[in-house]
Amino acid sequence: MNKTDIGRFFEDFSVGETIVHATPRTVTSGDVSLYTALYGSRFAVQSSETFAKAIGYEHAPVDDLLVFHIVFGKTAPDVSLNAIANLGYAECRFLQPVYVGDTLSTTSEVIGVKENSNGKTGIVYVRSTGRNQNGCIVLEYVRWVMVNKRDKASPAPDPVVPDLAKQVSVTSLGEACPLIDAGAWDCDLSGSPHRFGDYKAGERIDHVDGMTVEEAEHMIATRLYQNTAKVHFNQFTEGQGRFGRRIIYGGHVISLARALSFNGLGNGFHITAINGGRHVAPLFAGGTVFCWSLVKETAKLPGRTDVGALRLVTYAALDRPCVDFPGRAEKGFDEAVILELDYWALLPS
Amino acid sequence: MNKTDIGRFFEDFSVGETIVHATPRTVTSGDVSLYTALYGSRFAVQSSETFAKAIGYEHAPVDDLLVFHIVFGKTAPDVSLNAIANLGYAECRFLQPVYVGDTLSTTSEVIGVKENSNGKTGIVYVRSTGRNQNGCIVLEYVRWVMVNKRDKASPAPDPVVPDLAKQVSVTSLGEACPLIDAGAWDCDLSGSPHRFGDYKAGERIDHVDGMTVEEAEHMIATRLYQNTAKVHFNQFTEGQGRFGRRIIYGGHVISLARALSFNGLGNGFHITAINGGRHVAPLFAGGTVFCWSLVKETAKLPGRTDVGALRLVTYAALDRPCVDFPGRAEKGFDEAVILELDYWALLPS
Amino acid sequence: MNKTDIGRFFEDFSVGETIVHATPRTVTSGDVSLYTALYGSRFAVQSSETFAKAIGYEHAPVDDLLVFHIVFGKTAPDVSLNAIANLGYAECRFLQPVYVGDTLSTTSEVIGVKENSNGKTGIVYVRSTGRNQNGCIVLEYVRWVMVNKRDKASPAPDPVVPDLAKQVSVTSLGEACPLIDAGAWDCDLSGSPHRFGDYKAGERIDHVDGMTVEEAEHMIATRLYQNTAKVHFNQFTEGQGRFGRRIIYGGHVISLARALSFNGLGNGFHITAINGGRHVAPLFAGGTVFCWSLVKETAKLPGRTDVGALRLVTYAALDRPCVDFPGRAEKGFDEAVILELDYWALLPS
Repeated sequence: MNKTDIGRFFEDFSVGETIVHATPRTVTSGDVSLYTALYGSRFAVQSSETFAKAIGYEHAPVDDLLVFHIVFGKTAPDVSLNAIANLGYAECRFLQPVYVGDTLSTTSEVIGVKENSNGKTGIVYVRSTGRNQNGCIVLEYVRWVMVNKRDKASPAPDPVVPDLAKQVSVTSLGEACPLIDAGAWDCDLSGSPHRFGDYKAGERIDHVDGMTVEEAEHMIATRLYQNTAKVHFNQFTEGQGRFGRRIIYGGHVISLARALSFNGLGNGFHITAINGGRHVAPLFAGGTVFCWSLVKETAKLPGRTDVGALRLVTYAALDRPCVDFPGRAEKGFDEAVILELDYWALLPS
Repeated sequence: MNKTDIGRFFEDFSVGETIVHATPRTVTSGDVSLYTALYGSRFAVQSSETFAKAIGYEHAPVDDLLVFHIVFGKTAPDVSLNAIANLGYAECRFLQPVYVGDTLSTTSEVIGVKENSNGKTGIVYVRSTGRNQNGCIVLEYVRWVMVNKRDKASPAPDPVVPDLAKQVSVTSLGEACPLIDAGAWDCDLSGSPHRFGDYKAGERIDHVDGMTVEEAEHMIATRLYQNTAKVHFNQFTEGQGRFGRRIIYGGHVISLARALSFNGLGNGFHITAINGGRHVAPLFAGGTVFCWSLVKETAKLPGRTDVGALRLVTYAALDRPCVDFPGRAEKGFDEAVILELDYWALLPS
Repeated sequence: MNKTDIGRFFEDFSVGETIVHATPRTVTSGDVSLYTALYGSRFAVQSSETFAKAIGYEHAPVDDLLVFHIVFGKTAPDVSLNAIANLGYAECRFLQPVYVGDTLSTTSEVIGVKENSNGKTGIVYVRSTGRNQNGCIVLEYVRWVMVNKRDKASPAPDPVVPDLAKQVSVTSLGEACPLIDAGAWDCDLSGSPHRFGDYKAGERIDHVDGMTVEEAEHMIATRLYQNTAKVHFNQFTEGQGRFGRRIIYGGHVISLARALSFNGLGNGFHITAINGGRHVAPLFAGGTVFCWSLVKETAKLPGRTDVGALRLVTYAALDRPCVDFPGRAEKGFDEAVILELDYWALLPS
C-alpha cells in the first residue's frame, strides 16, 4: 500500500463527516517567544505574568492569533493540501483562554460542498474546532476553500451551502475573557491611555508603522504552526508556478497587522471573535505591510461592565503607508490592499 | 599567553585520549519550539505532552535529532575547527530519552588516527558520548573527519583505524524508548494509519514535499546547537573560498529530511540508531530539499512486542522531486543526491 | 481624539520627569533559546543549570545583554521614536541576576536636555532603570539621543548636561553576581583555561571568527526585545532614506561581538558594568562582523576573592578580520570599525 499521503480531493468530503486532524500540540513558552520575535507584538496581557494576574487572568494567556494559527495549521494536511484558494472565514469565536502547557488539537466538520460549474473544482465548507487537553473548546471557526477534484468525471454532489452569520453576535462575545478588574488596568504599562469608552464608531486609526517580511520569517512562523501548505515552503516548485515565488501564509499577514495595530489600539488586549476575513491579494517576501483600522461599531457586553467590545475592520496594505486609509474602492479595494479583517476586540472599561 | 583558541590540528589527537567538551547545555522548551519552527516536524510524541504520556513516556521527549545536534555541536571547537571535511558517522545509538530541563554535555574519545599520503592532512576518528545531568549516556556515535596538520614536517603517527559496525545490531535497538502502550496509539492523532506491520522490506516512499532553505534559518539552527564550525557563518571568508558561499551544516539537511519524511512515515516516532550517514554534496541557501526513503529491513526487537524497527535509507535531493527515487547510481549517486542516511526508526506494533 | 501615538519630540522632555514605559515582559526559556540561536553565545553559566548551580547561582541567569535589550527596548516608543541618532551610553550597571520567570519593566528619568544650535534638534539624556516583579532594580544606565523638535520656533529650554562618570568605579562592580565557588569552576566545561589572574592590562585578544548578519535575524532579535524603532523594520521607507536600507539595531552588534568574544574570554561569564559604548558606523544585512578586545585594566573587587574584573574595550569591525587589531586611529577610528564598547566583565579567580 502506498504510504504517501496525497491529501483529499473534492470528492473526498461528505457533508456531516468529522475529520480528526493530526498532531496534538503542547503550547510552550518557546512558542510564545517566537511569536513575539516574529511579529513584535506588545500587548501587556500576553507579555507579562504580573500584568495578566493583576487584572484577573490565571496566567498570561497565549496570544489569540497564535492559538488560531496552531489550530488552523492542523487542518492543512486534511483540508487544504489540494486547495487552490482559501476563500474566507466566518463565525470565529475564542471560547477559553489558552495557557502555556495546554495541548491543542483540532477536528473539522464538513458543513457544505458545492461543485463549481467548470467541473474541475469545488468549494468545501468546514467548521473547525480547537480543543485543549481537557476537551474544552478554545476556538471554533468556519472556513471555505476551493479544492481540486480528483477526476473531472465524478458526479457533482448535492450542493449544500451553509448559512453563515455576517457577524458574531454581541451576545456571543467575551467567553474566553475572565471577569477582569478594569480598575487594576495600568494604562502606563499597557502603553495606551485609551479605554473602551474613548473610541467612537466611525473612527479611523492609522497604525503608522510598516514591517517588511523576509522568506525566513514567514517560513519559520508557518512551520511553528505545523501548517504544511506547499505553496509557502517550496521555491523550486513555486518558481515554476503562477507567481514564481513562495506565497506567504495569509495568517502571517493577519498577525503582522494585529501587532502593528498596537499603535492606536494598545488596550485592545483580546480578539474575542472574527466576523470575516479576506485575503485580497497575496503577499511575497520583500513586501512591507502597513495597516489601519476602522472602528465599525462599539458594543457593551450583556451583563458585563469590566470590558467593552470594538468591532474593527483592519486593512493591511502593501508598500503603502495608510495615512489616507486605503480600503474598499468603487470596484473592490484600493489596489494596495492585501487584507480585510473584520473582528471584535475587547478593551477595559 | 595567547588567549585565542585556534583549535586542534592533526598532531594534537592521540588515540586513547578523552576530550571533555565545553558548554553543558540545559535543553528547554524554547529549543523545542525553535526546532519545530526550523523544520516543521510533526511527530505527535515529540509535539504533545498528552500523546506522549498516553503511550507511556514521562513527558514529550525532545526530538532525537535535536539531541544529536546539541551533543554534536559541543565537539566542533575541539574536533572540527580545523577540519576540512566531515567524512562519516557510524554506531550511533540513542540510549535514554531526553526531556526538557535535562542538561547535556559531551566527551569524545579519540579512537583512530591515520595520516593521509599527502602529508598535509589526516583522518581522526572519535567516539562522542552525550550525557545528561545524572551522568547517564543519552547518545553515542562515532564520526571521522579530515583535519589539517599544523606542520607538514611532523612525523606520521602509527595508523589506527577502528573496526566499525556496518549497522547497529537489532539487539542494541530501543534503549531510549520506554515500553509503550501500542494500543493507546491513536493513528488519527499521529497522522498516519500505517503501523510497523504495514511496512515491507524493499518499499520505497516518496516524501513528496520540498523545503527551501534560507541563510538565516540554517545559521539560527546551527547557533542554537552552539556549533561553531566557521564555514556556516562567515560570508566574508567563505565568499573567497572554494564555494564562494556559506555551507549549510550537514545536520540541518538530516533534520529537514526527517521532518519531510513524516509524509509516509508519520508513525516512525523515534530514531533509535543511525547506521551511517554520508553528505554526498554540500547544500547552500536557496536550494530546495526533497527526499524519499527505502525500507531496507524490518525487525522485531528481542523481547519487545510494543514496537518494531524499520531500517530506512533516506536520500535527500537538491532541487529534484523524488517521485522516481534518485539514489545510488552506477558510479556513486544520482547527481541530485546530497544525503544518504541509513537509520533505524521505531514504530508502534 | 487621535489614537495614533506619534512619539515624543524634543519639547516633550522635561528634566526631572519620570517616564513609565509600557509592556512589562516576563522573560522565558523561549527568549533564552532565541538569544542563543541568534548569536551563538556559549558561556557555560548562562547555558547550563548544572554549571550555574555548581558555582552558586540559584539558576542559570539570563544573559546580561538579553536583559539589557529587553529593558532598553521598552524605552524606544517613548524616547527614541523621533530620534535621529543614539549618541552614547554611560554608567550602566547590572544590579541583580535575572532568571527565567522574572518580569521586567522600565522607567526613565530625564536628566538632561540641550538644544542644538541649528534649532531643529536637541539632545536628551535619560537614566533608564529596569526592575523585576519585586521592584528590585536589575539594571540601570544612562543614554543620550538626538531628537527632532516638533517646531523649530519653540524656545530652547535651559540646557542641563549631566556630569557622567568616564567609567563605573571598581567599588560598584559585581552586585548582580552572587558569591561564587571559584573552586567549583570547571575550565573544561567552561571552555577556557584562563582565569582572572591570567590576564594582564594591555593584552589584545583577537576573537578570530566572523559572523554574517541576515535581515531576518536582526529583525527577529529586535522584535524579541519589543524595540519599535522604525529604521530596523521598514524597507519601504528606509529604501527612500539616507542609507537606502534597514539599519541594524546597535545592540545586535554588541551581542554579536560579545558572543564572538567567547574565543579568548570564555571565562568572562558576566558583564557587570558598561562604561561606555559608541556605534561608530551603522551595520547593514550582509555584513560580516569580526571583533577583538583590549584588556584595559584588571581589578580585584573590594572584599571579594571569588571573582576579579577585567575592563575590556571591544572593537567590532565590518568585513575585516581583526588579526592586526583595528581600533582607534589618528583621526577617529580605523575605517572598518563599527563599535567600540568599554565594559567590565567578571572572571573566576
